[in-house]
Amino acid sequence: MTTLESIKAAMVATNALFGAEVIAMRNYDAFDQIYTSSARILPPGAPMVTGRDEIKKFWKGFIESANVVAGALESVDVIQAGSDIVEIGKAVIQVQPDQGERASMEVKYVVYWREEDGRWKWHVDIWNANA
Amino acid sequence: MTTLESIKAAMVATNALFGAEVIAMRNYDAFDQIYTSSARILPPGAPMVTGRDEIKKFWKGFIESANVVAGALESVDVIQAGSDIVEIGKAVIQVQPDQGERASMEVKYVVYWREEDGRWKWHVDIWNANA
Repeated sequence: MTTLESIKAAMVATNALFGAEVIAMRNYDAFDQIYTSSARILPPGAPMVTGRDEIKKFWKGFIESANVVAGALESVDVIQAGSDIVEIGKAVIQVQPDQGERASMEVKYVVYWREEDGRWKWHVDIWNANA
Repeated sequence: MTTLESIKAAMVATNALFGAEVIAMRNYDAFDQIYTSSARILPPGAPMVTGRDEIKKFWKGFIESANVVAGALESVDVIQAGSDIVEIGKAVIQVQPDQGERASMEVKYVVYWREEDGRWKWHVDIWNANA
């Protein structure tokens, strides 16, 4: 039986991949486990990006140009919507410029989750900065 | 019967209130028809705001300080999630500074919709700018 508790555990596992695999290891193929194949992201300061392949390109460009060195996601609220989930969350991202101090940035987000191939993944992902 | 087409028509009506009542008329009580009572908004550059009363204060402050003079919302995708809806959309906002030219700003958003008191309303609302 798929309980909300088991879904939340699966969400924690997916969210952990972002920091542990994508950012720490620069393993962009981990996005196969994070985004649905037809996912869309709505990044601040850029148009919407459609499809996992394009999303991988976006994040590779962003992470490497800003030199993102750490990222941690935390659910603030998890809402069941039929067989899907709407999550409100916050993220802390650390960037290390070539020259200069490591900086921390707080971001809030909404992710619409779906189950795909037995995993819980981000289907629509939008975020913005708190300041 | 509540079909997706009838929900979409209700959503168009709610979205139209934002431009026609809130912005054009400075009628902030129209938010009673737009947001659920426990709605949350996640504005760029500010922390999350919880509850319709606080949301009204946020928008009054934003609209009057930026002198927003027009706003038009358009659905890009409407996704059924159980008995709720996830909408991806875009908005064009016009601001008229005291001194200076009227300026147009394009925004994209995700809204998680719920039915409350027989109306379709925004329950979680997050947006950011394209540039």
